[in-house]
Amino acid sequence: MANSKFEYVKQFEQPDSLLPNTWIVVRLDGRGFTKFSTKYAFEKPNDMRALDLMNAAARSVMSELPDITIAYGVSDEYSFVFHKSCTLFERRASKLVSTIVSTFTAYYIYFWPIYFKDSKPLTPPLPSFDGRAVTYPSVQNLRDYMSWRQVDCHINNLYNTTFWALINKGGMDGTTAELMLKGTFSADKNEILFQKFGINYNNEPEMFKKGSVIFREYEMVEPETTKNGVEKEAEKANTAVPEVKSKSQLEKEKKARTKAKIVVEHLDIIRDEFWERRPWLLSGKPGKVPKEQKP
Amino acid sequence: MANSKFEYVKQFEQPDSLLPNTWIVVRLDGRGFTKFSTKYAFEKPNDMRALDLMNAAARSVMSELPDITIAYGVSDEYSFVFHKSCTLFERRASKLVSTIVSTFTAYYIYFWPIYFKDSKPLTPPLPSFDGRAVTYPSVQNLRDYMSWRQVDCHINNLYNTTFWALINKGGMDGTTAELMLKGTFSADKNEILFQKFGINYNNEPEMFKKGSVIFREYEMVEPETTKNGVEKEAEKANTAVPEVKSKSQLEKEKKARTKAKIVVEHLDIIRDEFWERRPWLLSGKPGKVPKEQKP
Amino acid sequence: MANSKFEYVKQFEQPDSLLPNTWIVVRLDGRGFTKFSTKYAFEKPNDMRALDLMNAAARSVMSELPDITIAYGVSDEYSFVFHKSCTLFERRASKLVSTIVSTFTAYYIYFWPIYFKDSKPLTPPLPSFDGRAVTYPSVQNLRDYMSWRQVDCHINNLYNTTFWALINKGGMDGTTAELMLKGTFSADKNEILFQKFGINYNNEPEMFKKGSVIFREYEMVEPETTKNGVEKEAEKANTAVPEVKSKSQLEKEKKARTKAKIVVEHLDIIRDEFWERRPWLLSGKPGKVPKEQKP
Amino acid sequence: MANSKFEYVKQFEQPDSLLPNTWIVVRLDGRGFTKFSTKYAFEKPNDMRALDLMNAAARSVMSELPDITIAYGVSDEYSFVFHKSCTLFERRASKLVSTIVSTFTAYYIYFWPIYFKDSKPLTPPLPSFDGRAVTYPSVQNLRDYMSWRQVDCHINNLYNTTFWALINKGGMDGTTAELMLKGTFSADKNEILFQKFGINYNNEPEMFKKGSVIFREYEMVEPETTKNGVEKEAEKANTAVPEVKSKSQLEKEKKARTKAKIVVEHLDIIRDEFWERRPWLLSGKPGKVPKEQKP
Repeated sequence: MANSKFEYVKQFEQPDSLLPNTWIVVRLDGRGFTKFSTKYAFEKPNDMRALDLMNAAARSVMSELPDITIAYGVSDEYSFVFHKSCTLFERRASKLVSTIVSTFTAYYIYFWPIYFKDSKPLTPPLPSFDGRAVTYPSVQNLRDYMSWRQVDCHINNLYNTTFWALINKGGMDGTTAELMLKGTFSADKNEILFQKFGINYNNEPEMFKKGSVIFREYEMVEPETTKNGVEKEAEKANTAVPEVKSKSQLEKEKKARTKAKIVVEHLDIIRDEFWERRPWLLSGKPGKVPKEQKP
Repeated sequence: MANSKFEYVKQFEQPDSLLPNTWIVVRLDGRGFTKFSTKYAFEKPNDMRALDLMNAAARSVMSELPDITIAYGVSDEYSFVFHKSCTLFERRASKLVSTIVSTFTAYYIYFWPIYFKDSKPLTPPLPSFDGRAVTYPSVQNLRDYMSWRQVDCHINNLYNTTFWALINKGGMDGTTAELMLKGTFSADKNEILFQKFGINYNNEPEMFKKGSVIFREYEMVEPETTKNGVEKEAEKANTAVPEVKSKSQLEKEKKARTKAKIVVEHLDIIRDEFWERRPWLLSGKPGKVPKEQKP
Repeated sequence: MANSKFEYVKQFEQPDSLLPNTWIVVRLDGRGFTKFSTKYAFEKPNDMRALDLMNAAARSVMSELPDITIAYGVSDEYSFVFHKSCTLFERRASKLVSTIVSTFTAYYIYFWPIYFKDSKPLTPPLPSFDGRAVTYPSVQNLRDYMSWRQVDCHINNLYNTTFWALINKGGMDGTTAELMLKGTFSADKNEILFQKFGINYNNEPEMFKKGSVIFREYEMVEPETTKNGVEKEAEKANTAVPEVKSKSQLEKEKKARTKAKIVVEHLDIIRDEFWERRPWLLSGKPGKVPKEQKP
Repeated sequence: MANSKFEYVKQFEQPDSLLPNTWIVVRLDGRGFTKFSTKYAFEKPNDMRALDLMNAAARSVMSELPDITIAYGVSDEYSFVFHKSCTLFERRASKLVSTIVSTFTAYYIYFWPIYFKDSKPLTPPLPSFDGRAVTYPSVQNLRDYMSWRQVDCHINNLYNTTFWALINKGGMDGTTAELMLKGTFSADKNEILFQKFGINYNNEPEMFKKGSVIFREYEMVEPETTKNGVEKEAEKANTAVPEVKSKSQLEKEKKARTKAKIVVEHLDIIRDEFWERRPWLLSGKPGKVPKEQKP
């Protein structure tokens, strides 16, 4: 072939497959979203349209990539989790990251006029996202990652809610508000919100306080009475030899996933209950489709 | 901070900075574009609208990322080159790849209604792209990479032009056409095109035959009379200690790049002449702005 | 400092820390040991002196590096296991591999005159070893790695025992023996050994059949009656947040390890019993020093 | 095969081939040599026997691995350089590092009784070394690496020579000597040596001042009169397509290398002259065997 003289350059591609039997998290973040949110006058501290748009884009990513088990989003970031048994794209980091980021971006641009229908249309420079892949060896590590993001959501949202209340309702400027909040604890911020502005933080929208979690909905199971429900699941997940599933089995599971309803919720994903009642999230096996479900 | 209990999960992020003093190529490819091009009835073997859309998206990527030196595209793929002295994003592979792929995708979706204005509008599943980064230590390796892609473009285009002529003008079915072309050389295909269909391949559009190359346009220089023009440039580029540029110097160069006109051409990038006349491509230093240029 | 002009070259060192919370296995192999074993007239199929020398060197490695939990050796290879919580050398692959390989080699050369006292002294080219590090996310993966090596030991030793019996006692040449064993199963080889040479393979030395396993000896525990003993241990090991041990705690554990007796055994490491009775191997915590032990 | 159930664990080995067309430097360092040198009463600041032993071990490494182009050693460290066209062990980092470190260690232990014949024999813990591989894309980067090490040698040796003169001849204790040298420049140390102890630093042994460089000796060439001699060589080295050498060509070159005399010198490797007169070091092609040489 005439091309062979140059084809040696292919040897410079370095393999980047992620370690087998580890949970893969791909997280994407908005690039320059402070500037971007100003340009389109996002509401502060939370813009419902912007969050709904993020969720819609993430939901589409999960729909196009049935290998994704669960996703969690807050502000302009989203994390997508692949089960540790996943072999999509031979687990190549760059392929996984770029596919997710590209698909997400496509839907973000595509859905913009729907979620921001009363806003001015998008003009360059367009919104974009960057991403990276991280692997976690154990269920506990993965759950701690998810907890980390949700605690971060809580801390930031409480701060931002108070900060913007001081500005929007208290008439403060940014510098003064920042100074006032410096060194305060959660209890202090709750107190400021309540005393000064009559805001009970607990009544704030769940999406703002907890972020958004997306997954396939199957019939939930009763949490086992023992304290060890999740750990047992974790145990099974961790000690099992990577099951070699037959092609037809894989195909069947993929079909089951494709049929399942993808839901966007705003739940506590730190406590065991969330995981105990949805064992398919950690087992990697599709659950039972609920009878009452209308997909 | 309340979050510290979970923050240990950050330690699992593995660094992925690319080796310093190497040329970085980020190549992206359309995902499932065979199916996608059928859905939107792309013309065969080349759809001018689709190629113009690719070029427009790539041009926007270069415009948003002044660190990109040159880009080359063919069919549903595009390669972006960062100079070996580039330190953007600390040369982190996932950040470079995801940013380029995301920005490209954003513009692809955004420009679609312009370039495909008579086509049906985009509907899910949306087009998307994956990408990867490869590093090349020497100028010769980089040029060979670029040559590899352009030779590939030529080989594929000659094949496709003949294949689709046999079908569209010769009334053959795909299987017969494939069989007929099996084992043929370039000369044979040229002959078939000319004898059967009166097509002189040389008269085909340059964009189809050569692909598209995008770069910042400065005043071209006379190629040195010695055979060694490029090699000298290469030599300088290769033996120089990574110059530590001052911040103001970097800022100045960035500004110069931002002002320069970005052009889309369809030139031979295999021969020395292309590189000799545009020394800024390999030196990494902005050239002289041509007097007659109207940006 | 006068050196600063050149110090930029340090930036080219790429980090190679292994993923946290994974088991690290460093395996070393003899380089060119076929030739080497011929030069020093190793007995076939097993040379007791050579295996004892390997074990002595490995034991010294474990003694110098208390972070090593367990080691397994067969023929001219040895695998060393670091607990998944290990942070030695910041888990840098090259540092872990080179340190183990270097220490092993030093003792191999040093002990040679002791174990091969009736053989000719070492002369260049000297024996040497290469090595690599592999990480395993779960206890099951690690145990499967160990099982893989021990099954390999069994398969090779049965083959070699039969092969060399055919040659040494049956008077065959190598090619004929090879041909005769082609396609045979374990049962066939057992049969040949017994029928032709009166050898009961089961009576062969344990070291030849099972390889050698090295670990610190503490008081063994009764295997729990439930089938789940090891899995429970595994579970604990897998779900626990990487414990951040205090410096004094680490120092204490290191001291405990340093005092423990290091033993070389030839046991079945595939079955659960081995691991159930020695829970310190998977828990990473030193066990109880047996009363009767005289270190 | 009975082993197949466990063989899946092989998939966990991650590839670690180093980027093609880059110079590979493997550097090894003594582990805990401060303590080790005290145990065997090394002379301060330089122990001739210890340096000769390091050089002998390094020379043997080069002799066993003809792919090594040049090596440079100082104190208890040694750097080995593979030409950028080298494909030994498929350029796998762990294999290259472990092989060099193991071979070096073997000879260090083996040669000990020769170089330290009047010292007490080695006893555990034995000396050992760790190592790592770094790649350099250009000739200039590689030469800067070598210069970095030699400048380091100079700086350390001047300091140590002065420090130990203050102690051994000036009767100072370590703390006072350290304090006295704090903040001094090279000129100050030269002055102290000369004024206080009548030592002209320039007359110190070349091995102490310059370290040791090991390479294969061929007929030296007259440095080209142009300033650009080395750069031309570098240019050729950098722009050339990785030559695909035939097996017989590789075999021939290997034989030529094996026959060449390996010399240990103490030369300035920072200045161009060293490289200009020995073009085989950067070209990777064996030079002419000098007529007068008696291998």
